[in-house]
Amino acid sequence: MKTTIGIDLGGTNVRVAMVDLDGNILQEVKGPSFGQEGPDKVMANLISLIHQLKNIDECIGIGIGVPGPVDSITNTMTMSTNLPGFTGYQIEPILMKEFGLPSYLDNDANVAGLAEARFGAGKGKQVVYYITHSTGIGGALVIDGKVVSGRQGYAGEIGNIIVSDHGEKINDLNIGAVENLASGTALIRIAQTKIDPKINSAFTLFDLAQKGNPIAIEIIDQMAYDFARMCSAIAHVVDPHVFVIGGGVSKSHQFYFDKVVNHYNQLVHVGMRNPEFKLAQLDEPGIIGAASLPISRGK
Amino acid sequence: MKTTIGIDLGGTNVRVAMVDLDGNILQEVKGPSFGQEGPDKVMANLISLIHQLKNIDECIGIGIGVPGPVDSITNTMTMSTNLPGFTGYQIEPILMKEFGLPSYLDNDANVAGLAEARFGAGKGKQVVYYITHSTGIGGALVIDGKVVSGRQGYAGEIGNIIVSDHGEKINDLNIGAVENLASGTALIRIAQTKIDPKINSAFTLFDLAQKGNPIAIEIIDQMAYDFARMCSAIAHVVDPHVFVIGGGVSKSHQFYFDKVVNHYNQLVHVGMRNPEFKLAQLDEPGIIGAASLPISRGK
Repeated sequence: MKTTIGIDLGGTNVRVAMVDLDGNILQEVKGPSFGQEGPDKVMANLISLIHQLKNIDECIGIGIGVPGPVDSITNTMTMSTNLPGFTGYQIEPILMKEFGLPSYLDNDANVAGLAEARFGAGKGKQVVYYITHSTGIGGALVIDGKVVSGRQGYAGEIGNIIVSDHGEKINDLNIGAVENLASGTALIRIAQTKIDPKINSAFTLFDLAQKGNPIAIEIIDQMAYDFARMCSAIAHVVDPHVFVIGGGVSKSHQFYFDKVVNHYNQLVHVGMRNPEFKLAQLDEPGIIGAASLPISRGK
Repeated sequence: MKTTIGIDLGGTNVRVAMVDLDGNILQEVKGPSFGQEGPDKVMANLISLIHQLKNIDECIGIGIGVPGPVDSITNTMTMSTNLPGFTGYQIEPILMKEFGLPSYLDNDANVAGLAEARFGAGKGKQVVYYITHSTGIGGALVIDGKVVSGRQGYAGEIGNIIVSDHGEKINDLNIGAVENLASGTALIRIAQTKIDPKINSAFTLFDLAQKGNPIAIEIIDQMAYDFARMCSAIAHVVDPHVFVIGGGVSKSHQFYFDKVVNHYNQLVHVGMRNPEFKLAQLDEPGIIGAASLPISRGK
């Protein structure tokens, strides 16, 4: 049976799995990544973890999800805040020398989107737009089972899309960027200002809204509008067959999604109304998506 | 020599050309399309025009650009305001019966974008975003030499992207839609209100700005911001390797493009600055792009 190796390489932890071509995890090992100690230490540790896998002779390639944008031509990270030393660092020759296998890098949102497009909520759809709706807002465009990264790996950096003319300069993002208005972090900040400085979770705000708190309802309605306006921009650019929404903010909040779709339908051409908005389905999109890279990017 | 037939089918006129695989027009015939008289008349006329071409035995397929969105799966128009009766109408079996050749439909912005991506300003680039900046604003996404049409053919309907919270309800587009703020039509409307009700061309406004009229300069600067804000949204969704800009508003206005790029650079991540913005290069993108459809869509 042919398999691939999927690696979820974070700044703190790393997970290494053997995965079959249907996206099933067969074996998994994990440990600290030593991400702050530089590439030599990270790679030596990674190699020893991979050696713990059995039947590696059946593997046809290695895929690695990393926390930052990747140039898919040079197969290196273009920014690596959480993995110091990895900007421009060539992982592939090291793993090729050790294991004789090609390896492919992509960023964590892209690999999660790839997994959902191949095996999850986007399965069978030609154009999938995956959106993480969590502490931040990010995304990935997957067409025909391949990630579209763009010129510098910034395709999917949708958190920076402007959805309001107003707002304050909070961080490096645009004034009015959707991530500063509709992410989990933004919700908490807005709720602390408007309701109670002690609120420290988006879930608390959703609870308050469901109990009828009018300010909480107003905040969530505005967030649904802002999120829908971002989706409307995406739709006019690529008209995806399905939006797949992952991340903590989305789960178990059907009333929130109904609001998003209602706003969305007012912000698109009539023929574009009622698209498929689906929640992400996979438990381990990061590792399964990484394992799919040798299939989707391999020649 | 292998060739294809490219057809530019409009509501008033139709042009039919034989094109080689390098995008050179070898023969061309044209005439009225009889677009208001219904599909039977349009198709009979089209067939007689195609029969005027010589060496049709060397053709491997037919491509047709039409004025409206196309469902690329059913290969039919989904809306046909300028070609009454063509919504859902099957052109392909009629041409197959007459000529034994497969035929492919796409809308006029998509075929123009395809031509620029294959033979013009986007040649050799993986992700091309083509934008028509004319009386209206439209676009096309071309990846690896193939148009991405999306779920219902609405990919590229970027004129409806919101770039301002303010504005009046003018037509079916969103309030604050870029087409209502930065198209040639919008410019004339704004200039008539703010400068002189007799202004009837965007070129007059550009002339006034170049002569130093402060209101004209302000209008054009705002237009450049609005257009750049739309480009910023596109970039965060797909990060194109090149923006190719066609249409009358763009030509011969380098100072306008410098303004667009300056605004754009303030509305994207640092790593995304100074992308390639290129003017469209082809004289006949409509017919060459249509002729490319059998190559890009053929199995």
